[in-house]
Amino acid sequence: MPQQPTPLDPVQLTADLIRCPSVTPEEGGALALLEAHLGAAGFACTRVDRNGVPNLFARWGAKGAARSFGFNGHTDVVPVGNEAAWTHPPFSGALVDGELWGRGATDMKSGVAAFVAAAVDFVQETPPEGAIVIAITGDEEGPGKDGTLALLDWMRAEGEAMSVCLVGEPTCPEHLGDMMKIGRRGSVTFRITARGVQGHVAYPHRANNPLHALIDLLGRMTAEPLDQGTEHFDASSLQVTTVDCGNPANNVIPAEARATLNIRFNDLHSGASLTTWAQELIDAVAAETGIAFTLDADISGESFITPPGEFVALVARAVEAETGLVPELSTSGGTSDARFMKDHCPVLEFGLVGKTMHKVDERIETEQITRLKAIYARILREYFA
Amino acid sequence: MPQQPTPLDPVQLTADLIRCPSVTPEEGGALALLEAHLGAAGFACTRVDRNGVPNLFARWGAKGAARSFGFNGHTDVVPVGNEAAWTHPPFSGALVDGELWGRGATDMKSGVAAFVAAAVDFVQETPPEGAIVIAITGDEEGPGKDGTLALLDWMRAEGEAMSVCLVGEPTCPEHLGDMMKIGRRGSVTFRITARGVQGHVAYPHRANNPLHALIDLLGRMTAEPLDQGTEHFDASSLQVTTVDCGNPANNVIPAEARATLNIRFNDLHSGASLTTWAQELIDAVAAETGIAFTLDADISGESFITPPGEFVALVARAVEAETGLVPELSTSGGTSDARFMKDHCPVLEFGLVGKTMHKVDERIETEQITRLKAIYARILREYFA
Repeated sequence: MPQQPTPLDPVQLTADLIRCPSVTPEEGGALALLEAHLGAAGFACTRVDRNGVPNLFARWGAKGAARSFGFNGHTDVVPVGNEAAWTHPPFSGALVDGELWGRGATDMKSGVAAFVAAAVDFVQETPPEGAIVIAITGDEEGPGKDGTLALLDWMRAEGEAMSVCLVGEPTCPEHLGDMMKIGRRGSVTFRITARGVQGHVAYPHRANNPLHALIDLLGRMTAEPLDQGTEHFDASSLQVTTVDCGNPANNVIPAEARATLNIRFNDLHSGASLTTWAQELIDAVAAETGIAFTLDADISGESFITPPGEFVALVARAVEAETGLVPELSTSGGTSDARFMKDHCPVLEFGLVGKTMHKVDERIETEQITRLKAIYARILREYFA
Repeated sequence: MPQQPTPLDPVQLTADLIRCPSVTPEEGGALALLEAHLGAAGFACTRVDRNGVPNLFARWGAKGAARSFGFNGHTDVVPVGNEAAWTHPPFSGALVDGELWGRGATDMKSGVAAFVAAAVDFVQETPPEGAIVIAITGDEEGPGKDGTLALLDWMRAEGEAMSVCLVGEPTCPEHLGDMMKIGRRGSVTFRITARGVQGHVAYPHRANNPLHALIDLLGRMTAEPLDQGTEHFDASSLQVTTVDCGNPANNVIPAEARATLNIRFNDLHSGASLTTWAQELIDAVAAETGIAFTLDADISGESFITPPGEFVALVARAVEAETGLVPELSTSGGTSDARFMKDHCPVLEFGLVGKTMHKVDERIETEQITRLKAIYARILREYFA
């Protein structure tokens, strides 16, 4: 158990976490380090590992408390890419000219360090009436099947609960405080295969070109926007991410072609409604062309929103008080584990500027981490006030 | 020089040619064998090799004769594919149950053997008033840049000429005599690359998806038939032969995508007019989408026709007299070296049933070869009558 400094320095904690090589699904010592800090501050800690994925649950205060503030985040990081291209080694946690370097510096060891440091200080300085629950996974960047989902399954079984949850992912496009996420679009991936009849291009009547039917289908799918957006959501976006056939012979009509599409969708749709929409278009093209299609739909998250209200106002006020910026209430961007937490309690996301996340030379100004901790601390104070 | 039997047996000659392993561009002894037979019959033979491609020119009679009947063909063959799958080895020339087996049995060592045998017999039995010119290449199945084109270049330089030309490629779909080719469609291949801006699918406004523009373009190109056909030609046919992107990440908008198209076109179009058509569509889509396209056009042959007239009637009469079938006057199918010969003189094509060409277990009934020789012999008799 480490000696517990007060206040807990989130920059030092971020650097210590960066030095843990926790590329998904490696624990890398990151959760053990957090468990030591949280345990020393009086949190009851439980490792909730599942199928080799490491997860950490920590609670300060009583189980079943009427007010229980939750934090969610992850210590796993994406691979470093070309390690030789990094200015400072990706697991060095180098501190240079006020910036902390390394994989996870923005996504999101800094965010985890900031809310852990805020929570540790808070319970020691002004023990609240209620509970603080921290659920940290070691697989948010990977498949995610045994990460936050495992924590939620375990919490349900154990009667553990959060009243509200704040996810510490990076959310700000330009300046700390300029955006918080009150929901996310859903995401569904369609993998489509078109099978026709191979043949010689000089005898097209003896063949049936699956590419022509696939082009027709993709044309119908991309011709019009899915919608124009809703009150809290941007327009849904469909992107064809790849089309592949691999036919090297320019005198041969191919037998098969494949396409992958991803849709980021708002609250006008669901994964199921879009799958039905795609299947109906496929059925129409199949009937017109005689081409056999298969559709594989992978729904990685439904859209959700925590509508503006008390919790949103509390977080927004705290951000504005610490940064001077009124955060935009956004539902843009990719997916996060908020898509799982939303099934448990109201969930919001607020964190750093994510510009260097997933890139070579990921890094963050240390002053940003300190300010993020101050924001999280203010949120805790106001929540329990 | 081989002992010259009379009449020259085209089945034996085909078998001898099959035993020459003349996969493009290997000569394999095939042209040397023909040169020996033709030379023995009084043909003046010249090897017209260019850039490693073997070609044979042979003339009986005087250079500059008023009437000069030409034959064109090739001795090279396509690769054997899976040799273990052949019932009889592909270069064995096995004679089994009335069938001759091996690569080139239909395409087109049999055709070459039939017209060489017909010509050799003809000049020995009834020496004509005029010339017989035989131009045989060792590269019709390959790039074809130094095959029949080299023979034509050499002929022009030497003052050699054909008045008319008959190409001995397989032309009959079902029965010997059911089809002759009086022309061919043209062929052009377009290779199109679309370059956009890569990005994350969750932030499509920061990217520009080249696949969407390419799908739009290909949709416009395939939406309507190019034409409805003309008097002697089928409708032109456009086939997209491959679309490739190779993007493995379903959350990434790709930077580039590629497509290849092949058009077999009739006499309403030219390679240049279709290239202009494609470029105009590309320019329109590029202007609407901001995607940068490149177009590479490879015109492998223009459409051409030898309209029904004296030469067509002569060949058709001979076919009908020997087979009882009135040959359909067709311009269908793939390309052949007739696309080069047509720039020199009127050209027609007549040959065997091509069902097994380019396949494993290529073979032909020997009786068909004998009948083809008889047809060619009748054509020579009638031409010089």
